[in-house]
Formats: sequence, structure tokens, C-alpha cells
Amino acid sequence: MSVTLTDIRAAQERIAPYIVKTPLLRMKQLDGFLGCEVYVKAENMQVTGAFKLRGALNKSLSLNEEERKAGLVCASSGNHGRALAYTAKLLGTTAAVVIPDTAPPIKVEAIRALGAEVIRSDTETRFEVAEQVCREKHATLVPPFNDELIMAGQGTVGLEIAEQCPEAETVIVPVSGGGLLGGVSAALKAVKPSVKVYGAEPAALPRYSESLKAGRPVKVPKQKTIADALVSMIPGDKCFPVVQANVDAVVPVEDVFILRAMKKLLLDGKLLAEPSSCIGMGAVLQGLIPVRPDEKVCFLVSGGSVGLQQLAMLEDVTV
Amino acid sequence: MSVTLTDIRAAQERIAPYIVKTPLLRMKQLDGFLGCEVYVKAENMQVTGAFKLRGALNKSLSLNEEERKAGLVCASSGNHGRALAYTAKLLGTTAAVVIPDTAPPIKVEAIRALGAEVIRSDTETRFEVAEQVCREKHATLVPPFNDELIMAGQGTVGLEIAEQCPEAETVIVPVSGGGLLGGVSAALKAVKPSVKVYGAEPAALPRYSESLKAGRPVKVPKQKTIADALVSMIPGDKCFPVVQANVDAVVPVEDVFILRAMKKLLLDGKLLAEPSSCIGMGAVLQGLIPVRPDEKVCFLVSGGSVGLQQLAMLEDVTV
Repeated sequence: MSVTLTDIRAAQERIAPYIVKTPLLRMKQLDGFLGCEVYVKAENMQVTGAFKLRGALNKSLSLNEEERKAGLVCASSGNHGRALAYTAKLLGTTAAVVIPDTAPPIKVEAIRALGAEVIRSDTETRFEVAEQVCREKHATLVPPFNDELIMAGQGTVGLEIAEQCPEAETVIVPVSGGGLLGGVSAALKAVKPSVKVYGAEPAALPRYSESLKAGRPVKVPKQKTIADALVSMIPGDKCFPVVQANVDAVVPVEDVFILRAMKKLLLDGKLLAEPSSCIGMGAVLQGLIPVRPDEKVCFLVSGGSVGLQQLAMLEDVTV
Repeated sequence: MSVTLTDIRAAQERIAPYIVKTPLLRMKQLDGFLGCEVYVKAENMQVTGAFKLRGALNKSLSLNEEERKAGLVCASSGNHGRALAYTAKLLGTTAAVVIPDTAPPIKVEAIRALGAEVIRSDTETRFEVAEQVCREKHATLVPPFNDELIMAGQGTVGLEIAEQCPEAETVIVPVSGGGLLGGVSAALKAVKPSVKVYGAEPAALPRYSESLKAGRPVKVPKQKTIADALVSMIPGDKCFPVVQANVDAVVPVEDVFILRAMKKLLLDGKLLAEPSSCIGMGAVLQGLIPVRPDEKVCFLVSGGSVGLQQLAMLEDVTV
């Protein structure tokens, strides 16, 4: 069981009518800051503000009518929940979203505004809670990452990068459970094997760094990070082998570099991205991924759910 | 004396090595908000953060070596000064920038950081001060708008819009002295006469609305506006006839609509733009430019010089 190029191409066709082909931006103004030729895949401009819609749609559109009618359920730190709430509205069904206590208010409000039921939970128990809700409602669980259809849907970003930025030599992707990184790396390595693909994860939650070393999914202790969309404590067991097979390395990034990247991307790049989305740039700033000045590096900016009040924290960040 | 397509094409060739061809973004996520199909020409992603570099470069690259060596001078509310400071550095000469008291600190600092001399002045007397500095230094005055070479340089944005968004039916441009609006409207009407071109100016400083009514440049009283880059009290006498000949209408926009547009563009569009740049969207929000849901409208977002502290003012804005 894995995710193939055929799966990702099928997903691309299935979800095309509902998503935006987000822009691929050349950001010369950040070249000096990052020490390479900077390209940005702006999934923060995706409908619902993040790449998550791609997976949620691919899974939900694959259900039969009866399954769809019974409703959709997920556990999510925010962006996936918003995507599922939007998907449910689009398909004329209901959604219930289990949200961990680490999710910022702006994400919770966006989910409620789309008409979904919100259930609060602890980060650690959120998946168990979602499964229980599913059983009670006879609804379908739409996981945020650990599912082949989700990975294939999220992997469509990789196909777009290959098409919009064929010159990219290196692609850097934020990673939590591994759905996006798995799907994107599978797509990229299939269509352009020479491209290097890196994952960037919070140093506080180095689940992929540890798991790749161990050769199997390893659970790391719960820790706080500014990257509130990247809070998985263990790789998805379906995502891990895909990441293991396709990714050159995963690096652990400190919060301070994430925030510097976020501030620079906003003030000089003019792009609003949430902290988790800036972790790839943070990885380069921290010196974890060596780049050359003439190297074409594509940063996957995965989401943009940030409120004005959260931006205030950037004032004290030195760039 | 006017600005022709030939002038604008020559400018395009002259400045091409130094500027960025900024992205033209389809922003589905703002369609509902603005009541039309939204396209954005993102000149906030231009080198130095605004379209102003195009004019400053075109003028400065047209000087002979001796003129260039004697240095460059301008009066500017910020973005043009930054562009000229950058141009001087690029060409290995000096720049002195006369800045009115309305300019925000972020713009002043950016000019100083590029090594230019900063001279503070009142908004009303800034052009006289700049001329005097010029005489003292035997330097060349590079006006922010009232000059054919400046207009031609700024008009290159229009050529790019026509190329990147040939489907645009309507283009809305911020206006102060009229360099950008003059150049862009001349370019667009020359290559695609059917396109409608509107100017949007602060309601507090309706110099073009008044002047077009009177049929000649009219000076309006000094007033405050949140659009700190659009503070001219009178149209440039070289810009006015170009605008008069090519623009369908200029509309006066209230600050409250500018701020609403800015907040929505940031939080939903994920794009950081300064208030002056959001005035076109403000014009549509205020109902001053009628648009249809299926109308393809391109908003020229002219600059993005905003500091984090300025963003705090958006917290109380209702969208």
C-alpha cells in the first residue's frame, strides 16, 4: 500500500473543479535573506486558506452517496477542520471537527462559521475522540494525513510545483504527520527524480527526524511550538514509508527561525503565512539545509490562517 | 507632448534588467467580497516594494554619464524616494530625498538604509525644496510623477497587465499626481481600447475628480488621509492631459473603505499592501465603480510599505 503517481493524478482530476491552482511566485526580494533563488508555492492562497482542502476533497469525493449523507468527522489542529467543514457544505452534508486545545481561535471560528460542529479535546486524545464521534454518528472519518486518499490529494501540490516551476532543484515542505510531505515527495520524485525534497519539522517535536533514524514510526513527547499546525507526536503509519522512500532528509527547526522567516516573508515578500508555513525558510535560515546562491529552491508555504493579534508577536523578532 | 506606446515600450526595454515582472494573481477568495472576478497586479512585490522604481529607473537611465554623476534629487512621500535611493545605489551615484511630514517612519528608514540623504519638509513646499536642493548640488530632479519619462516608466505596469491578464475588462488604479494612472491608461488604451480604466483617489483630496470636472488642473485644500502615498493636492500638468484622454472616470474613496479592503486583502487574500494600494478595492466596496459578478476586474496594488505597528489599526476595522 502506497501512493502512486496514478493516485495523485486521479486526485488532481477529481478535485480540480473545487480548488485554486495557487500561484508559484519568484521572490527575488528574499534571495539575499535566504542565500538562494527563492520560489514560493503559495498554498496560503488556497480556498479555506491552506493545502488541506485538497486531501479532504479527494477523500470525500471518493465516498458513495450513502456514506456522504451520513456525514464527515475529523480531528484537526485547525486547517484540516476548516477544509472538511467547507467540503461538507459544498457536498450538502454535515461535519464534526475535534479540535485540540493548541488551535488558535481564528481557526476555530472559521470552522464554526462554515456550519460544522466543533468538539474540543486534548492534542493527545483527539484521534480517539474523533473515532468515537464517528461510531456514534455512523459517519466517515476523514483523517488529516494518515490515509492514502488524503496523501494523494495533498500530493497534487507536488504536481503543480513540477509544472509551474520545472527549474526547481530543491523543494522544502513543512511536515507534521506526513500527508503533505508524503504526497508531494511521491509526486515530485515520480515526475522529476533529480529534485531534492526536504521536510522541515519543529525542533520541539522531531517525530520524523527520530523515526527516520529508527527506521519506524517513533512517538516523541508532547511539546509546545509556535508551529501550531505541526503538532503530531508520531508519523502516520501510512505516511511514514512514503516519506522514507521519497524524502532526502527531514530537519528539526527552532521556533526563533520560523518567526524570523515569517516576519521577512510578510514585510519583504508581502505574503501573510502562518508560522507552520514558514518552517521551510526557517530551516534554511538555521543552516539545516545547505543551499547555494544560484540554487533554485521552492518553499511550500502551506497555509495562511493568522489573525492580526498574532502578528503582534512579530514586533520583537529581529530579522 | 504626451506619452505614447512607443515611449512606454522603450521604457520597458530600458528597465527590464532591473525590475521584477510582478505576478498577476487571480483572487477567487475575494470575489464575494467585491462582487466581481478579482485579479490583482501585485506591484507591492516590486523591488523596493512599489511600482515607483519603474519611473525612477527609466528617468535615471536616460541621463548621460555627467548628469548621472552629479546625483539625483526628488521630493517624495516615501515610495518614490526609496526607489530613487535604490536607483542611485544601483548606478553608483548619490540621491537626496525631500520627504513630507506625512510619510510613515517605515518609508523614511528604508530610504536612509539605502544610503540616501533625507531632507524633511512640509507636504505643500516639498517640490520647491527639492528644486532648491537640485540647484545647490547641480543635480538632476527626478520627479515622482510629473515627467514624461516617469510616466512612461510607470506605464510599463499597464503593458504587463495587458499581457498577463488579457481577459481583464476593467482596470482600477490608485491616483495621486497621475503618473501611474496616466502611464497605465495610455498603455492599456493603446493595446486594448475596449478595456475600462478607472482612477481611485482619496475623498479627502479629490484633485482629479475636481480637475476633470473643470477641464484643467485644480488645486484642492490639504487634508489628511490614510492613503499616505496619495497626497498630491493638484494633478501634474503633464499627467493631467494623459489621464483626461485615457481614463473613463476617477472616483473619490473614503478612508473607511480603503481600510476594509486592506484588512480583507491581508487576511483573506494573504497579501500585505499599504492603504494607498487598496483604494481601488475601496472604490468598488463603496459602490463608486459598478461591477458585475462575472466581470473580470484587475486591481493595481501599487505598493506594500507597511510596518507591523501600522497593522494594529486594522483590528477595529469591520469587514
